[in-house]
Amino acid sequence: VPPATDLALAVEPLRQLLGADSVSTNAADLLPYLEDERGAFHGRAHVLVQPASTDAVARLLAYCSEHAIGIVPQGGNTGYCGAGTPFSDAHILLKLDRMNRVRELSKTNFTMTAETGVTLQRVKDEALAAGLDFPLSLGSQGSCQLGGVLSTNAGGLNALRYGVARDLVLGLEVVLPDGRVLNRAQGLRKDNTGYRWCDLFLGAEGTLGVITAASIKLMPLLQGRATALLAFATLSGASAGLLHFRQACDDSVVAFELLTQGSIDLATALGQGSRLPVSAESGLMVLVEVAADTSERATERLEAALQPAMEQGLVIDGALASSLSQRESLWRFREDVPEAEKRAGGSIKHDVSLPVQHLEAFVNETVDRLRAFEGARLSVFGHLGDGNLHFNVLAPAGADAQQWRHHNGSAVTETVLAAVAEFGGSFSAEHGIGVSKLDELERYRSDELGLMQALKAVFDPLGIMNPGKVLR
Amino acid sequence: VPPATDLALAVEPLRQLLGADSVSTNAADLLPYLEDERGAFHGRAHVLVQPASTDAVARLLAYCSEHAIGIVPQGGNTGYCGAGTPFSDAHILLKLDRMNRVRELSKTNFTMTAETGVTLQRVKDEALAAGLDFPLSLGSQGSCQLGGVLSTNAGGLNALRYGVARDLVLGLEVVLPDGRVLNRAQGLRKDNTGYRWCDLFLGAEGTLGVITAASIKLMPLLQGRATALLAFATLSGASAGLLHFRQACDDSVVAFELLTQGSIDLATALGQGSRLPVSAESGLMVLVEVAADTSERATERLEAALQPAMEQGLVIDGALASSLSQRESLWRFREDVPEAEKRAGGSIKHDVSLPVQHLEAFVNETVDRLRAFEGARLSVFGHLGDGNLHFNVLAPAGADAQQWRHHNGSAVTETVLAAVAEFGGSFSAEHGIGVSKLDELERYRSDELGLMQALKAVFDPLGIMNPGKVLR
Repeated sequence: VPPATDLALAVEPLRQLLGADSVSTNAADLLPYLEDERGAFHGRAHVLVQPASTDAVARLLAYCSEHAIGIVPQGGNTGYCGAGTPFSDAHILLKLDRMNRVRELSKTNFTMTAETGVTLQRVKDEALAAGLDFPLSLGSQGSCQLGGVLSTNAGGLNALRYGVARDLVLGLEVVLPDGRVLNRAQGLRKDNTGYRWCDLFLGAEGTLGVITAASIKLMPLLQGRATALLAFATLSGASAGLLHFRQACDDSVVAFELLTQGSIDLATALGQGSRLPVSAESGLMVLVEVAADTSERATERLEAALQPAMEQGLVIDGALASSLSQRESLWRFREDVPEAEKRAGGSIKHDVSLPVQHLEAFVNETVDRLRAFEGARLSVFGHLGDGNLHFNVLAPAGADAQQWRHHNGSAVTETVLAAVAEFGGSFSAEHGIGVSKLDELERYRSDELGLMQALKAVFDPLGIMNPGKVLR
Repeated sequence: VPPATDLALAVEPLRQLLGADSVSTNAADLLPYLEDERGAFHGRAHVLVQPASTDAVARLLAYCSEHAIGIVPQGGNTGYCGAGTPFSDAHILLKLDRMNRVRELSKTNFTMTAETGVTLQRVKDEALAAGLDFPLSLGSQGSCQLGGVLSTNAGGLNALRYGVARDLVLGLEVVLPDGRVLNRAQGLRKDNTGYRWCDLFLGAEGTLGVITAASIKLMPLLQGRATALLAFATLSGASAGLLHFRQACDDSVVAFELLTQGSIDLATALGQGSRLPVSAESGLMVLVEVAADTSERATERLEAALQPAMEQGLVIDGALASSLSQRESLWRFREDVPEAEKRAGGSIKHDVSLPVQHLEAFVNETVDRLRAFEGARLSVFGHLGDGNLHFNVLAPAGADAQQWRHHNGSAVTETVLAAVAEFGGSFSAEHGIGVSKLDELERYRSDELGLMQALKAVFDPLGIMNPGKVLR
């Protein structure tokens, strides 16, 4: 590895190479990107580069390779694990906002080829304007960018029906750390021509190279929705409900979101005022949503599926949203949960996934083990249809939340994640590794670590791409 | 690389290691596996190993690594590119038929975890017995095996709606060439914990290690089908038809199969006697199939979509199959095409894919260029919904077909594949590389070749896995 250049010496050459307006050392320009959206990570950097084309990215990376300069690519800055935050003045912060062209949208091919800096909302809007759908839906879709969505293999609400980001990608254009451009973003649905190296970039969090464009799948647009809130007696009942509704609704269930009592209590007390129209002793609620071409058809299906489920006692209570405002109110309640946790003083968060058939045993066992943390409150919610739980733990009512988390955070997390591993689950379902789950990756994927390091070395032998993220 | 052992010396140690019944040198045992199902490749080998467990595969590979012995894994022996055929007496032929357990099927998780030697038909049957669907459908499903299906990233008929093999895999258990076992086949829909190395095995044709088990997605079962034959005036009209039917049928089109005049003539003359109920001057026919929970509902949707398409002149003629036997007759006609080509003396085959919006221009241009081969006949058919054409070229009527192919094969293929590349397509959509497309990979993916070789070296530094396949 050549010696690291003093980054200040690189500014002029980079301006020559990329254009003066693509390189900034102005603290005010950098400031918004040094802290993530949630305010969880506080970074540092004093060189910001904003290339506007693949070719410019290639020139930048070739220069950085030659001079062994680290680069931290950042999308919409909405990630939860610090992958996009720069932590060293020796590294360049790479923003890709200016690479925001939709290069091609083909209706008959059901594809869009878009550049990395396009926001997810714009991808969805452009698809909609063509009468099609890009079904990936995230809370952060207004600001997160395609490159970040793919680099973190985002999942979100509709993965149950449409898969995660990986499932929606046909191919990528990437720049390798040495400046080579490889383009497999032609929009081909079938292409078996050697190793699918570009799949490795999905979820690699910018550590292998830079995704500059992607060819993604669009879907026929199903504009109708029907939404219901369902109460179940047990978590295994809710899992059986997942099977029932997916089958009975003709494979058109697009969301199956779990809420448990702790989350419901928080959102009721500290949310924006939405109320759930159903209550149940079990505290187990599911927000189910069905898609069809019209709302009438979606409603007809959901009603037809709901009736036998209630007659058989599988669903113990249920309410179908009968207006758009009722539907929005249900979703607002669901979306209030993370905000309510924050207002309650914050939570120790775990974004885990399990095989659905083991969810109940996992939750029971983990709740039992957490009794060691007296008075700790739980907020468990998430995408039941994908086995993805946000298993969050809050301080006892009345305790100093921050202090409690500081004292108990590691032990709580160890308790939860040990149980996840025992039940065959994943310690990071949606959010990735970044810098915050390096220990967990080393602990729970120790047998794969050597292989991951060797793959990293193939793409990025000098270690210039997003140093210290995913792998130490 | 240690010197290659004389393979005869390895037989006794392998019997000790794996059990006497797992190792055979009997020519009669080997014979059925030395030639592929189509009879296109003629191989050689004199040691056959048939392990029954992941642990036995691990012991085998560790031994082969230690002694630098090449291994050729073979699934159901139905591939089209020779990837599963052993070509050297110095290599061990690895059959995985005995690894045929379905380890787990979870209805609520919508997953099956099955071993590599299970046939695709059995995977589908076990899903069906549980009231669910594994939607991958191939002509060879009665004999092809899960490991081979995944190692070739097979596509088939329903990729339009459900994706290719890659899209249906949640995780793999693999044995690396050094004997290490890595298991990511827990059935997790969301798992963002480092690089998805197991994605690289999908389509790697057994050159990186051995897939011993996979966790695959199951779908709600849609038992109803409606099938129609549609005539279009032009290929771009058929592409517009794809858009129309996918949208108007509520995202439930599961097949959109193109037939052109050459293929229709062949199957009419040399097929099993099915006849098409529609004819058109253009010779452009599409077999469209819609799925729903009941056939009535599927038919209702397809009829509702067909009516405006005919009124607007998009579809110039159409016939809805009104009975199961009519439906079967349509599909039999489609399936007769490859067989009819064989009876006509064989064809120069090209399994290509293109962005759907470029299909018409590609076909027109290629047909034009092929006029240089006087009298050559075309059989163009395939999965229009995926942009996947089987673009096959036959000798002129009356010519000695074999001789004609021998003289013109390379030039015809070069003409077709050059056009494919110009229109942004892939020279191998479904069938992979094996040994028969090594030249094309080197030619059309030259910029990726170094990366592919480096990835191969990470997994298989000694080059013992399926030597000479995919990469020389």
